[in-house]
Amino acid sequence: MKNKLVKKRSSKAGLPPGTLVHIGERHREASRVSITTYDESSFSEQASDDLAACIPLRDRPGVSWINVEGIHSIELLQKMGECYGLHPLVLEDILNTDQRPKREDYGAYLFIVLKMLSPKNGSEGVASEQVSLILGPNFVLSFQEGLAGDPFDPVRERLRGGRGKIRSLGADFLVYTLIDAIVDNYFVILENLADRIERLEEELVANPARETVGRLHALKREIIFLRKSIWPLREVISGLERRESTLVREETVVYLRDVYDHTIQIIDSVETFRDILSGLLDIYLSTISNRTNEVMKVLTIIATLFMPLTFIVGLYGMNFRYMPELEWRWGYPAVLLLMLVVVGGMLKFFRGKKWI
Amino acid sequence: MKNKLVKKRSSKAGLPPGTLVHIGERHREASRVSITTYDESSFSEQASDDLAACIPLRDRPGVSWINVEGIHSIELLQKMGECYGLHPLVLEDILNTDQRPKREDYGAYLFIVLKMLSPKNGSEGVASEQVSLILGPNFVLSFQEGLAGDPFDPVRERLRGGRGKIRSLGADFLVYTLIDAIVDNYFVILENLADRIERLEEELVANPARETVGRLHALKREIIFLRKSIWPLREVISGLERRESTLVREETVVYLRDVYDHTIQIIDSVETFRDILSGLLDIYLSTISNRTNEVMKVLTIIATLFMPLTFIVGLYGMNFRYMPELEWRWGYPAVLLLMLVVVGGMLKFFRGKKWI
Amino acid sequence: MKNKLVKKRSSKAGLPPGTLVHIGERHREASRVSITTYDESSFSEQASDDLAACIPLRDRPGVSWINVEGIHSIELLQKMGECYGLHPLVLEDILNTDQRPKREDYGAYLFIVLKMLSPKNGSEGVASEQVSLILGPNFVLSFQEGLAGDPFDPVRERLRGGRGKIRSLGADFLVYTLIDAIVDNYFVILENLADRIERLEEELVANPARETVGRLHALKREIIFLRKSIWPLREVISGLERRESTLVREETVVYLRDVYDHTIQIIDSVETFRDILSGLLDIYLSTISNRTNEVMKVLTIIATLFMPLTFIVGLYGMNFRYMPELEWRWGYPAVLLLMLVVVGGMLKFFRGKKWI
Amino acid sequence: MKNKLVKKRSSKAGLPPGTLVHIGERHREASRVSITTYDESSFSEQASDDLAACIPLRDRPGVSWINVEGIHSIELLQKMGECYGLHPLVLEDILNTDQRPKREDYGAYLFIVLKMLSPKNGSEGVASEQVSLILGPNFVLSFQEGLAGDPFDPVRERLRGGRGKIRSLGADFLVYTLIDAIVDNYFVILENLADRIERLEEELVANPARETVGRLHALKREIIFLRKSIWPLREVISGLERRESTLVREETVVYLRDVYDHTIQIIDSVETFRDILSGLLDIYLSTISNRTNEVMKVLTIIATLFMPLTFIVGLYGMNFRYMPELEWRWGYPAVLLLMLVVVGGMLKFFRGKKWI
Amino acid sequence: MKNKLVKKRSSKAGLPPGTLVHIGERHREASRVSITTYDESSFSEQASDDLAACIPLRDRPGVSWINVEGIHSIELLQKMGECYGLHPLVLEDILNTDQRPKREDYGAYLFIVLKMLSPKNGSEGVASEQVSLILGPNFVLSFQEGLAGDPFDPVRERLRGGRGKIRSLGADFLVYTLIDAIVDNYFVILENLADRIERLEEELVANPARETVGRLHALKREIIFLRKSIWPLREVISGLERRESTLVREETVVYLRDVYDHTIQIIDSVETFRDILSGLLDIYLSTISNRTNEVMKVLTIIATLFMPLTFIVGLYGMNFRYMPELEWRWGYPAVLLLMLVVVGGMLKFFRGKKWI
Repeated sequence: MKNKLVKKRSSKAGLPPGTLVHIGERHREASRVSITTYDESSFSEQASDDLAACIPLRDRPGVSWINVEGIHSIELLQKMGECYGLHPLVLEDILNTDQRPKREDYGAYLFIVLKMLSPKNGSEGVASEQVSLILGPNFVLSFQEGLAGDPFDPVRERLRGGRGKIRSLGADFLVYTLIDAIVDNYFVILENLADRIERLEEELVANPARETVGRLHALKREIIFLRKSIWPLREVISGLERRESTLVREETVVYLRDVYDHTIQIIDSVETFRDILSGLLDIYLSTISNRTNEVMKVLTIIATLFMPLTFIVGLYGMNFRYMPELEWRWGYPAVLLLMLVVVGGMLKFFRGKKWI
Repeated sequence: MKNKLVKKRSSKAGLPPGTLVHIGERHREASRVSITTYDESSFSEQASDDLAACIPLRDRPGVSWINVEGIHSIELLQKMGECYGLHPLVLEDILNTDQRPKREDYGAYLFIVLKMLSPKNGSEGVASEQVSLILGPNFVLSFQEGLAGDPFDPVRERLRGGRGKIRSLGADFLVYTLIDAIVDNYFVILENLADRIERLEEELVANPARETVGRLHALKREIIFLRKSIWPLREVISGLERRESTLVREETVVYLRDVYDHTIQIIDSVETFRDILSGLLDIYLSTISNRTNEVMKVLTIIATLFMPLTFIVGLYGMNFRYMPELEWRWGYPAVLLLMLVVVGGMLKFFRGKKWI
Repeated sequence: MKNKLVKKRSSKAGLPPGTLVHIGERHREASRVSITTYDESSFSEQASDDLAACIPLRDRPGVSWINVEGIHSIELLQKMGECYGLHPLVLEDILNTDQRPKREDYGAYLFIVLKMLSPKNGSEGVASEQVSLILGPNFVLSFQEGLAGDPFDPVRERLRGGRGKIRSLGADFLVYTLIDAIVDNYFVILENLADRIERLEEELVANPARETVGRLHALKREIIFLRKSIWPLREVISGLERRESTLVREETVVYLRDVYDHTIQIIDSVETFRDILSGLLDIYLSTISNRTNEVMKVLTIIATLFMPLTFIVGLYGMNFRYMPELEWRWGYPAVLLLMLVVVGGMLKFFRGKKWI
Repeated sequence: MKNKLVKKRSSKAGLPPGTLVHIGERHREASRVSITTYDESSFSEQASDDLAACIPLRDRPGVSWINVEGIHSIELLQKMGECYGLHPLVLEDILNTDQRPKREDYGAYLFIVLKMLSPKNGSEGVASEQVSLILGPNFVLSFQEGLAGDPFDPVRERLRGGRGKIRSLGADFLVYTLIDAIVDNYFVILENLADRIERLEEELVANPARETVGRLHALKREIIFLRKSIWPLREVISGLERRESTLVREETVVYLRDVYDHTIQIIDSVETFRDILSGLLDIYLSTISNRTNEVMKVLTIIATLFMPLTFIVGLYGMNFRYMPELEWRWGYPAVLLLMLVVVGGMLKFFRGKKWI
Repeated sequence: MKNKLVKKRSSKAGLPPGTLVHIGERHREASRVSITTYDESSFSEQASDDLAACIPLRDRPGVSWINVEGIHSIELLQKMGECYGLHPLVLEDILNTDQRPKREDYGAYLFIVLKMLSPKNGSEGVASEQVSLILGPNFVLSFQEGLAGDPFDPVRERLRGGRGKIRSLGADFLVYTLIDAIVDNYFVILENLADRIERLEEELVANPARETVGRLHALKREIIFLRKSIWPLREVISGLERRESTLVREETVVYLRDVYDHTIQIIDSVETFRDILSGLLDIYLSTISNRTNEVMKVLTIIATLFMPLTFIVGLYGMNFRYMPELEWRWGYPAVLLLMLVVVGGMLKFFRGKKWI
């Protein structure tokens, strides 16, 4: 199943900015909300479907992380927007899952949009899910479309276990960790793609079939979509790394540089894939040409061998009364010999042309 | 119906700058002018065909918006130019509908040229209409070519209803709203294009016809025109967002950033479409090659099967007096058997080559 | 007639810089010189072939414009060079008609090189003529190759008539007007090209002939030359607009921005033409492939229909003594029936393959 | 054997940053560690497999260089990291051999990742090995994957011999020397590639075979990988040369500029190779087309010669009772003559078309 | 004879920087050294093969120019290096004739590397020779490979004759003059290439042969090499023109700008050539396709005409006892008529398809 080229968003035309309309696949299950609070010594985790009570995060000690899975509940978003002072355009962008990865600084908080990629269930292809992050001074809000499994599970594990530095550093480090989890997933996609390209490569050399060009196109299309998700990511992360917002602390920069490196590496690989795929198409086309050439040669050899022979036997099939050869004692063997000579000459000619 | 590559504008060669000549399709209907004045508490709307009386907008309270539909009336434009102190070059640009989207700062006002795109009635293709905006400290002038329906209707609705922030913010917010209305329309065009590309894609895989390449070219051409309208838009909006003119207020910037994001997203999609279309051409070409190959194979198989047979039957159709085989009791069945063996051998050869 | 790829200039190799050698087509007619002096109230015009007397322009009231048509007279140039203090390299560049459009600031004056384009007489193609402008504080010198008609005639008309602002503004406005006259001419070329491309487009879809690819190439070549003339123009004009020289006054900037816009628009169109032409080549190639495919199908259908039939009739043309079928009463009709069945089967097979 | 498109790294997804996992080919042999200390007058060299005792390098006189061959020993790396205060992310990057060449400034030390390239043993192709360098104020740590031979042997030789300036300059000069040794190796790869391209070029002109396109693709793929290793190198070295870190001394800059030049030269060559390869593919495709054309001509000539002849002899093979020609005395010779005339006419026709 | 893709330089791998190894074609003749000293009033010229005595140039009055032809004498270079205080890396670069054009500022002197291009003797193609220039405060050292004739002869002539400004300006003007002499030579190469491209163009339209694609490729290859030599030149000269070194005087800048313009013009032409060549390949390919199409049509027409006829005559060649037509009085003429009708119908069909 292929990714749609664009998502249906024309329904929004004419509405005032900040109007909350969910764009994307709507899921029936309710949204799930989890609240995690931690500092170096303590850790609490709590699932909640009721956010009627707005918890004031700014004054809470430690770092608070609210994760929302399933963003189609417009009421929930509106409540959260009021509670944490989010701009209506931010809420609009969270709902509109056709966003480009971006980073916006609203002063009191940073708004980051990313694309989570995962292999599609049961088919070749890549599923894309929008993840929105909001980084405040001591809290992080994250919004997932909630299509596939949760990429943030390992992060939650590490918070629980208190492994690494994650508990001792601030909210910006949590955002880094979440971005890192998403980017790490891209490598899985890359390996998947690389495998498929390499299989295609082998197939093309061994025995290209008619469907091959279709699969080549499908791969190319996936890579075009990948690029669209990954190129803007570079800018997003490099802006964080340059500490354009004061919400990013000095200590986190070295880690952000690391994710940045990974992003560059992924972009590099994607570009390499593009180059290789376009090379594969050239191979494919020249293979078809070669084959047509081969078929033509067989035809030409057969025609060139048998046409003169058929002419000769036709000649002596004529019914003229006066054809001296027909009466000769050795006429028939002589004609057979003549035909052998013709065939021999033809074969020599073909060998000279290196056709056989 | 295809868009013309360039509009007839050579008639202007040699005229002094600021000469008002209408370039574009001329419409018979008269121009329509509407004047809207509003502030947070009041709202008045009035249609007028008579602008002999120049209304001094600068000293009026609230925000005034004059919308002109149908720009071919040179006298009307001249009067407005005098009344609101517009530069002759601005008037010239409004009349010349072959402009590129641009933003020009004349100190007292900002001049913005945009392209409104809408699907063509009754045919595949995109109609393009020029919209010129002039942003003064407390007024907005807008000029539409007036070809298709009015894209500003929803804006007028919102002004009337007083929904959103639109009535409480200034003239720059109105300009933003108008630009947003135009850019929102682009998404409709994109979806339309995406649908057509996807249909073409399916057709190409299933059963490419001869006309397919023509439709591919038509799509490519439309995308070329789209790019021409959209790429300069990026610069126009990013200049507004960077507040290069003092007429743009701080509060509007966050909204302009939003339209800017939409523009980038549209550009992204258009580039993706280009990539995909060029991939489709490759598929098309390789499909034709494949077909030629198939046809050749059929021909070669038939010729290779029947040429030797025809030779054999020709051989025994010769009229030599001394051909011992002809007299044999089992000559005929033997020849039939021989031919069966030949056919069998050929079929084996073809199977070896994977042709059948 | 095609434009030469490069002009003969190797003859200059080894000469010291500033050596005056005319490079380009030499014309037999003598150079024509005209001197125009004007200010807001007065206007005088005078033709002169004798510039022995150097008129000191700097101290003259009003704006003086000396236009030289036909630049092959080296002596004339040398005299003017001495009289107005022009750098030897400037004179060299005026004479060398293979220059790239450029703008050079010599402090006391600005030196501008442009390309005037006009449709070639009696053939498709574009003629290019070099125009050099020198802008001093209160004078303008212009040098035309003098091949085609005079593009500056409308400017002279306006000066005479005193229409527009031209008489009240300074020498820099005159330079702007001259540049504008040249750039306006480009639109004529563009329309001409657009017409030819559109005709080619229609022809390609309807009935591409063998010569089509030659005409496509000719168009491509013209566009390559156009780009070479127009791309550098952008930089030339943008430099003037940014007022990098004090010889350009504040009031002229808005007009220069207008020509700049036109230049960008022309570049846009030229790039669009390139894209469309490359698309046309693809159509052409795929049309040829399609045709070969059609021809192959006809051949294959004919061969496939008649080869088995010819075999069958050949079979019963054999002269074996013992061929029971030959003696049968209904042998002949049976064979005819058999052949009908074979033909019917073949036709069904072709219909299945959608060949007929 | 081809290079893998990407290395298996998905196993790291979800692990906290700084987790040490070796990515790449694991080698059975133990890591080898050598410690070299020198200043202008003294030189000592020592191999060690035991780094349990951390040698404090910072206070040592002269320059110390620790070279580690074989980086798969995670414990060794961890010890060194603790001993010399390396950031966990640095250790992670050393272990992950799928890094892109990069340079990172950690204040107290510079971290540089490079790719060592060497021709593959026993097959066409390029082997790539990651080399990580750490430059401290008076020490250098280098980490090699240890696949192929040691590229640093000549450097060690020069240190031992005290040739050149190497012993009198600091640690930054040693780093330069190591980078230079790696870049020098690239020229070997380039020459190897150039040879293969030139051989392919000759083969293509003389007698392109079916495998040629496969070899062309293999070369293209190698060049794509080369670019991936070399392009980022440019930035790495230019950053060093601009002395962005204070660890690089003024005296070393001129040498770094030299390596930088070499890098640019290598990039130039690689780009040239790309251009030439894409030209070769064009030649290949047009050669196949030409061949098909040739084959077609042979077929057409044969068919055009023999089909009319076969028709004529078939005509006089008919068994009509009343066919006057059959009874003529000179019927048979007349038909032979007619056929000669037909053949002559055909040959003339072919000569007119320049087919023979 | 084609240019080698890369020069043999791998022999240097592993040597310390500054090691002098000559890379390039070694010539048997000895190096020639000439010393020229001049100021506005005096001029002396002297050939010397013995530079054992180091002449102190810095304190000499006037400008001194030492020209070395044939750079393979390592001892000579070493002596000069010591005498004039040249950095070992400079000497290394002079000897290594595989350098990229570059400009390096060593404070006391500027080091410039250029490529002299000249048409190859007796064959199509371009010979490239490295020229290194060293500009000191009052002296110039120039090093030529010494393969072809001396491009500096005209310069020497002008110095002797005292023509132009050359004797009154400093060493930087001499360097300009030498660069100008080299760049002027490029125009000869360009004209040569343009001629060959135009001839190829005509040939392709008139009658493309099989070798044409080979010549096209050869031209493309030459242009690739030209670009490699010319692109970096732009940066070299623009750096001089911006007076990044104090060794370049204000008065020389206007002249350097002139050479810079020439360089840009050459680059423009080379890019144009590339575009045109790639267009030529398209023409070539479509011509081959067209031809195949033509050949196919001839074959199909012949086969379609004669196959049905052959079938008909075969039909009446059958030996059935009961075939009433054979006995008819007008059977034979009726069959002849039938065949005429068939041929007429076929010809009409072909005319309908515009094949004949």
